[in-house]
Amino acid sequence: MNVKFVFRITALTVFVTSLFMLIPAAIALADKQMHNAVVYLCIVGIMMLFSLAILLITRKYKPSFYAQEGLASTSISWILISLFGALPFVFTGEIPNYIDALFEIVSGFTTTGASILTDVEALSRCNLYWRSFTHWLGGMGMLVFVLAVVPRAKKEDATGIHLMRAESPGPSVGKMTPHLRQTAMILYVIYILLTVFCIIFLLIGGMPVFDSFCIAFGTAGTGGFGVTNMSMGSYSTYLQNVVTVFMFLFGVNFNIYYFILLRQFKAVFRNEELRAYILIAVTSVIMIAINISSMFDNFFSALHHSAFQVSSIMTTTGYSSVDFEQWPAFSKSILLILMFIGASAGSTGGGLKVARVLILGKSIWKTIIKTLRPRKVHLVHMDGKAVAPATSHAVNAYLAVYCAIILISFVIISIDGYSIGTNFSAVVACFNNIGPGFELVGATGNYAHYSYISKIILTADMLLGRLEIFPLLVLFSPELWSRKR
Amino acid sequence: MNVKFVFRITALTVFVTSLFMLIPAAIALADKQMHNAVVYLCIVGIMMLFSLAILLITRKYKPSFYAQEGLASTSISWILISLFGALPFVFTGEIPNYIDALFEIVSGFTTTGASILTDVEALSRCNLYWRSFTHWLGGMGMLVFVLAVVPRAKKEDATGIHLMRAESPGPSVGKMTPHLRQTAMILYVIYILLTVFCIIFLLIGGMPVFDSFCIAFGTAGTGGFGVTNMSMGSYSTYLQNVVTVFMFLFGVNFNIYYFILLRQFKAVFRNEELRAYILIAVTSVIMIAINISSMFDNFFSALHHSAFQVSSIMTTTGYSSVDFEQWPAFSKSILLILMFIGASAGSTGGGLKVARVLILGKSIWKTIIKTLRPRKVHLVHMDGKAVAPATSHAVNAYLAVYCAIILISFVIISIDGYSIGTNFSAVVACFNNIGPGFELVGATGNYAHYSYISKIILTADMLLGRLEIFPLLVLFSPELWSRKR
Repeated sequence: MNVKFVFRITALTVFVTSLFMLIPAAIALADKQMHNAVVYLCIVGIMMLFSLAILLITRKYKPSFYAQEGLASTSISWILISLFGALPFVFTGEIPNYIDALFEIVSGFTTTGASILTDVEALSRCNLYWRSFTHWLGGMGMLVFVLAVVPRAKKEDATGIHLMRAESPGPSVGKMTPHLRQTAMILYVIYILLTVFCIIFLLIGGMPVFDSFCIAFGTAGTGGFGVTNMSMGSYSTYLQNVVTVFMFLFGVNFNIYYFILLRQFKAVFRNEELRAYILIAVTSVIMIAINISSMFDNFFSALHHSAFQVSSIMTTTGYSSVDFEQWPAFSKSILLILMFIGASAGSTGGGLKVARVLILGKSIWKTIIKTLRPRKVHLVHMDGKAVAPATSHAVNAYLAVYCAIILISFVIISIDGYSIGTNFSAVVACFNNIGPGFELVGATGNYAHYSYISKIILTADMLLGRLEIFPLLVLFSPELWSRKR
Repeated sequence: MNVKFVFRITALTVFVTSLFMLIPAAIALADKQMHNAVVYLCIVGIMMLFSLAILLITRKYKPSFYAQEGLASTSISWILISLFGALPFVFTGEIPNYIDALFEIVSGFTTTGASILTDVEALSRCNLYWRSFTHWLGGMGMLVFVLAVVPRAKKEDATGIHLMRAESPGPSVGKMTPHLRQTAMILYVIYILLTVFCIIFLLIGGMPVFDSFCIAFGTAGTGGFGVTNMSMGSYSTYLQNVVTVFMFLFGVNFNIYYFILLRQFKAVFRNEELRAYILIAVTSVIMIAINISSMFDNFFSALHHSAFQVSSIMTTTGYSSVDFEQWPAFSKSILLILMFIGASAGSTGGGLKVARVLILGKSIWKTIIKTLRPRKVHLVHMDGKAVAPATSHAVNAYLAVYCAIILISFVIISIDGYSIGTNFSAVVACFNNIGPGFELVGATGNYAHYSYISKIILTADMLLGRLEIFPLLVLFSPELWSRKR
């Protein structure tokens, strides 16, 4: 492996992340919390020195960059920014234990939104901001950002496509433009514009400025960290509706927005994933609304909370407008299924992704047909084009790894002795980057009660879920480290 | 489709099943329960008339028989013998509701062992016998039995292989001998011999004759219906150990016993599935024994109950020696994982099967390696031979269908409003043909509290699990019924 190039990219990522940590430092200064400001500035300094030292050491490097370098860069970068990003919580003394702090920041970067905090409001504003802002950074991906802003001389696309493939969610990555830097930039411009719109709509509804930014970051990254102990429950119906709509929008494949910008509406309407995404969401909203209607004054109120929760869980955001733990079992089961399905590929949401579920569903159907007519060639189609058998098999294999990781994690964290419902939904909620699960880790619960071993497992699950397993798994393969190129 | 041939085979299966119903009729006579004896004899008569009528109507048939005919024959036969087999419970008045009776008998034939009865001991001996005997019949398969005993003139193998493929569990069916009828006979001879040994060992331990037969049927078919309300808890340690050993033996691929009979010990030792099966069982027994040791007087007692429960759950039998619902969460999680893994392919056990889990595990590893070295050809190996990519893909596709059915069933039965743990383990326990799950459907619980809709869903899950999905799914395909040959 081209270790030098890999380390250069991770150093760049750490450097860019440290720049973003200047914002909470400024907030601490504005709030006259000098200790917190110094903590943030020191950590920024350490991160800068660290990355500059690596860039200096690796200044002579070969430009060869392939799939394995892309996977390794992505996973090492994510691990490093998490390890550094957890430090402010520890040294401001607000989350004194490093494992807790790491859980919280990985939950941030991976846009999970699971928390070990029993009292969110006790955090100072700089930490609250940093916690929510990691959602925004992790949502679109730090390496895609690096790709968009850092100029690179040659072989740019060869590097870029492997980084984007490794970091972007979904079974396949679409190149919007022939130049990848341009693609990355377009993605970030759409992302920033949508976030700004979200902030504006929240401000119009009378949400405080600080809350608007944090909630918008949590919505855009489909993360789910809030700034109050009641998640979104303390805000007005209008504000909840704004968040419902924007969570849903951030769960759409960003290619769709690019098509809209280019006025290629035909490509939008023909997109099967978008149609399935809307269909699943609408069906779930109606079924849950009917199921919970007796719990609310009128059907519209039930519809409102159903839409909020479906949008929140399906996009794997994890905000709650009410304590859905009190909802009937049928509604909770639908939410549990939505946790698995997740949002669209190429969005900021997690889960299996609607595109994968579609390919799985179609390949299931083809398998059934194949048992009847073994001699015919059966290809899965998507958006009118045949899906390469390799992609179809990869999706099936992904499901197998996905199930294996969920089951193994479930067994390990069950050592702590909580109920099956708590443990299973905790693993599913962390691995799919949702945040809240059911029972003890439900809408009003948190992850504080788990042992440190379980917290480490769940932290690993969040990373595995966000990076879609393979980038992290290959780090353990001896072939990665031994092979020379 | 060759409907006539399909109906002939199902008629033969119904006829053979009706012959076996003469045994409970004889027991009722011996017990001087004239009403019950008349009920059984009438139902036998109806089944015989039904099957003879069909054989008469379809006496002119073409001998063409392919995969789809095999799948259709199997699923229609299983549905018919279940529909008929439930009648005695209804007309003896001991399970008056037909849906309950159907649940119970499908649970019997599919060797699940899930029960809607709150008081097993209230059943008369003829019904208890029939209930347990269906485990024995369903374990090896009724159509394999028909294959073994009914002489067929020509194209015997072409018919047989499709029937065996459709009815026998596992990713692929091994032909022990070139002649399939001989293979089916050898399977049944091994099956009968092992059952007889089991009965003898139980009788030596002082178990009553009637109990010995019923428990041996439940063990051989890896079913799990008992004759007392405490499952196996009321029997001595020796008797529990006998059942532990025999449950484990019936979870082994029957090809292994054939190899042993042929003294091909090399093939036995080289069998990867057998090694994995033993390894998983031993590891689980030790982990659970350590976890529960504080609950028992000494470690050997913990080891005894751990071994019993692992053997029972892994082979999907479902007997219990103690109320494992009281065990710590870690032990219960291991049992839940074992529910998914299941027994060996080609045994009477259910679940995903160890062979499939092995192929899945290996294909997961190959997928990881493939992300690193995309240009190399990666084949999964099993027992030193390359697994055909088609088999490997079929296993992956099977997992996808498997997950989809579990999730859909889970949502539907959750309408009844029980907890996630109850509903999830109920679906897993029925679909994998285990029987008891956790919480309300745990070792001391039963399925009586579910609504009729849920019971129908769970009944369908048991059939889907036993027949490994595809034979039943193809019944719904319009291509099956419309296509002419």
